[in-house]
Amino acid sequence: MKQYRVLIDCSDKKGLVYKVSKLFFELELNILSNHEYVDSDNNKFFMRTVVEGNIEESKLTLALQTELDDDVNIQIVSPVKKNIVLMVTKESHCLGDILIRYEAGELDANIIGVVSNYDLLQPLVEKFDIPYFCVSHVDLNREEHEAKVLECLAQFKDIDYIVLAKYMRILTPTFVEAYNKKLINIHHSFLPSFIGANPYKQAHERGVKLIGATAHFVTNDLDEGPIISQDVINVNHDHSWRDMQRSGRDVEKITLSRALKLALEDRIFVEGNKTIIF
Amino acid sequence: MKQYRVLIDCSDKKGLVYKVSKLFFELELNILSNHEYVDSDNNKFFMRTVVEGNIEESKLTLALQTELDDDVNIQIVSPVKKNIVLMVTKESHCLGDILIRYEAGELDANIIGVVSNYDLLQPLVEKFDIPYFCVSHVDLNREEHEAKVLECLAQFKDIDYIVLAKYMRILTPTFVEAYNKKLINIHHSFLPSFIGANPYKQAHERGVKLIGATAHFVTNDLDEGPIISQDVINVNHDHSWRDMQRSGRDVEKITLSRALKLALEDRIFVEGNKTIIF
Amino acid sequence: MKQYRVLIDCSDKKGLVYKVSKLFFELELNILSNHEYVDSDNNKFFMRTVVEGNIEESKLTLALQTELDDDVNIQIVSPVKKNIVLMVTKESHCLGDILIRYEAGELDANIIGVVSNYDLLQPLVEKFDIPYFCVSHVDLNREEHEAKVLECLAQFKDIDYIVLAKYMRILTPTFVEAYNKKLINIHHSFLPSFIGANPYKQAHERGVKLIGATAHFVTNDLDEGPIISQDVINVNHDHSWRDMQRSGRDVEKITLSRALKLALEDRIFVEGNKTIIF
Amino acid sequence: MKQYRVLIDCSDKKGLVYKVSKLFFELELNILSNHEYVDSDNNKFFMRTVVEGNIEESKLTLALQTELDDDVNIQIVSPVKKNIVLMVTKESHCLGDILIRYEAGELDANIIGVVSNYDLLQPLVEKFDIPYFCVSHVDLNREEHEAKVLECLAQFKDIDYIVLAKYMRILTPTFVEAYNKKLINIHHSFLPSFIGANPYKQAHERGVKLIGATAHFVTNDLDEGPIISQDVINVNHDHSWRDMQRSGRDVEKITLSRALKLALEDRIFVEGNKTIIF
Repeated sequence: MKQYRVLIDCSDKKGLVYKVSKLFFELELNILSNHEYVDSDNNKFFMRTVVEGNIEESKLTLALQTELDDDVNIQIVSPVKKNIVLMVTKESHCLGDILIRYEAGELDANIIGVVSNYDLLQPLVEKFDIPYFCVSHVDLNREEHEAKVLECLAQFKDIDYIVLAKYMRILTPTFVEAYNKKLINIHHSFLPSFIGANPYKQAHERGVKLIGATAHFVTNDLDEGPIISQDVINVNHDHSWRDMQRSGRDVEKITLSRALKLALEDRIFVEGNKTIIF
Repeated sequence: MKQYRVLIDCSDKKGLVYKVSKLFFELELNILSNHEYVDSDNNKFFMRTVVEGNIEESKLTLALQTELDDDVNIQIVSPVKKNIVLMVTKESHCLGDILIRYEAGELDANIIGVVSNYDLLQPLVEKFDIPYFCVSHVDLNREEHEAKVLECLAQFKDIDYIVLAKYMRILTPTFVEAYNKKLINIHHSFLPSFIGANPYKQAHERGVKLIGATAHFVTNDLDEGPIISQDVINVNHDHSWRDMQRSGRDVEKITLSRALKLALEDRIFVEGNKTIIF
Repeated sequence: MKQYRVLIDCSDKKGLVYKVSKLFFELELNILSNHEYVDSDNNKFFMRTVVEGNIEESKLTLALQTELDDDVNIQIVSPVKKNIVLMVTKESHCLGDILIRYEAGELDANIIGVVSNYDLLQPLVEKFDIPYFCVSHVDLNREEHEAKVLECLAQFKDIDYIVLAKYMRILTPTFVEAYNKKLINIHHSFLPSFIGANPYKQAHERGVKLIGATAHFVTNDLDEGPIISQDVINVNHDHSWRDMQRSGRDVEKITLSRALKLALEDRIFVEGNKTIIF
Repeated sequence: MKQYRVLIDCSDKKGLVYKVSKLFFELELNILSNHEYVDSDNNKFFMRTVVEGNIEESKLTLALQTELDDDVNIQIVSPVKKNIVLMVTKESHCLGDILIRYEAGELDANIIGVVSNYDLLQPLVEKFDIPYFCVSHVDLNREEHEAKVLECLAQFKDIDYIVLAKYMRILTPTFVEAYNKKLINIHHSFLPSFIGANPYKQAHERGVKLIGATAHFVTNDLDEGPIISQDVINVNHDHSWRDMQRSGRDVEKITLSRALKLALEDRIFVEGNKTIIF
């Protein structure tokens, strides 16, 4: 018995569920779980079904392509480990959270490398026998540095996701383009509040009573991009911005790991600047 | 165009989604939203679909009954206002929350009456032109009192839900039986913590750091019954049990109103001692 | 035995707690609760002490003024009901939440009037025997309308707080000046996100996974002003902006009522654009 | 300049704050932060003050002992790193969370050893150059095993706290006595719900909509003991108990680390079965 995640999105029209479920029935596939969503504002249909049965992936793909119209996006994914690269700068809390999950076998992923613009986190990463690549930005302009990072990343053939686990440098459109829909970032604020540098200082100055974190796909606009998950934590007047930063780290790491889990389980559709999450 | 909520639950078997979606397709119904869940532990299937089209309710019912096996539970509900009765004792926060929503037209329900064992809340209820029935328990034993309450309720022909909005008396099996699956209660603790009398005193004595509330269907076991919604709020050592009670009231009323909304939208399936909520 | 809330704020210097507690000791006052905070960034000291004893308010005031330097702000408050005015537009959820608490005797306040630019909520308010003043803005410019509102408010001699319980008009500096530090507003977003008009539409477009509400004192900058309390609630792709608005209302009303309670208990200090809350 | 945390608790009586603040004033100590709480039910007074100045610890202690009555508990703590031992069984999430914080220098503690009844987590711990002691329970009864654990712990002279970071064995009164008020446990439920074995299975069966975790000091009653911190997370019908366990792990580790931080900063007073936390 094989298991597949079938992801379908297209313009909404009558009979889509019928056609797909008919096919699954005829192919004698068990439906383990099924989620649908119709975005009636934009007339879009989204479906994620987990099926089980005796069928080759290529045959299932062909059957779906034959049954459905040309303008339907079909993705069939086997639940195998995905390849991920982590990018970090100096802080270890998000990285560490992912490493501990990895070590425990909790993550459906192979961490094929960690890339950083500093060597600070090399000792931590190497404890877990994961290759660490320090690509320093010193004496380089943004384009030169990114070219070197891209070169470093080029050695990995199949990267499913690049997780920016507190990578504190802004990416150029070239980079974002190269890994379109594969870049997951954690921003240390409850977006769209406090875009840009040092959100905790901004939050402290504004006197907010909650601080948050946002995991999102990266697009070309700074701290924009489709939001995957968000969470917040209470703070009060007694918190310095350093205290907020410290408390915020727990929210950041949990929020990022939650987003990563959703991505690894193929639960996220992106439509425009939003996500549909099943 | 008419709209229907189609609720189906049965033993899980292959082809259920196919059969149902085929029928909807053939009847030219639009699927506005669709949720399914397979409880693989108990081999049960649940489905809630909102459809739109030109068809009489009786015809749709017949079509579904013909298409599906005899052991399938089918409910077809038109989204009309349901009839609800509120039962209260002395506290007004849950009652008041429902009344304000009612007045604003936010509630898909007709409040056909409020029943209480005290007359304390009569002035509040009558401000909203809702009939208030005081059925005092003084000098009556539990059975006698309940008989009178049941008599009072008997005047209402079609009660969809009875909301125990801080009705502080224990119901007998006779009562629960009479309104099976129609009794929604708010318990002022995060069940299963602090079952029974004065949960806030119990919580205060235990020194908890969070207090909660639980909305649930009523069964014959005290504070048991399928949970619909729960929420919590932070407390600390500085809170007396009275403070906890005060803070807790906000959680109670929001939790109960949320559960009521789910019930009025036919989003709740009950299976054994659990709920499936779409 | 009398009870007083003693509120002190000033530049921080050594011996403040000593001087104040010495005085309380000599005056044979019991300290029921005591909170202090030193803002070391700005070298400011804040203290709220609840004391109990046999002393006249004037005598206590004099004693504190004698003991402490001239630049120390001293407020001595007897825990009596404060006078509040509510201002509303068309939505009833925040207003209703306050009215129900009022009716239950839960609020340490007299609601001396409700002012609105519409007559829509008049029937609800009058159920509770509270005077309602409709000051329509139709055919008036902002200044003219506000002049009429100010005229209406002028009839109340002692207003402790004006609660903007979804009053949907922007106030001019004249108005804000007239009721400086007495204006509590509820903004229907998690500030500083989504400043300005229709935050729920903005939130929906941005695809956030949490929505929130912010209660704050009003200053001249739109949706700025010291934040008193904030809260959030989960949303997902399935929520239309109308759904977000509906869910958001619960957060708004609880957040506003919480802020009002803090104000009525004299627990809030304002320093610059921030609050210190004990 | 030296910094001290002064912790005082005793029966409440007039003039305590006065006496202590007078002393601080005369000793020319700056008060950096000050928290007090009077438990009027039990007539108890608690105070935590952080002071700064030029004074030896012994001199400060003597001064306080001279000034205050004999029945007053005085603790003066220098903010140095505390010695902690971790105890674990097979799960790594709480352990890993603490190790990553430790590696980042975020923890005011020396982890002097990790003790386990399995060797499973030895590789992880040794990555961080921390001694690991496997004390297997195989073929031993509870008393024999504990004797060996106590023997193992005896090699460490000054243990400030033992953190039971998912140590899945019940401790005997002998053990609890030996490390009274030094044992911090994480229980994988929102206590007092689901005491005992496999709380997630219990929670799943009960059909709760929130699951939680509780960090508490260990006393002789199973899963009793003063609660330090608690948190919860949403779950729904779609979660198997395994899913609940997975989600719950995040709550467990954050809740335990938060409790540990409070303990390391000497912010917790224990009174009876409760904590006062400043």
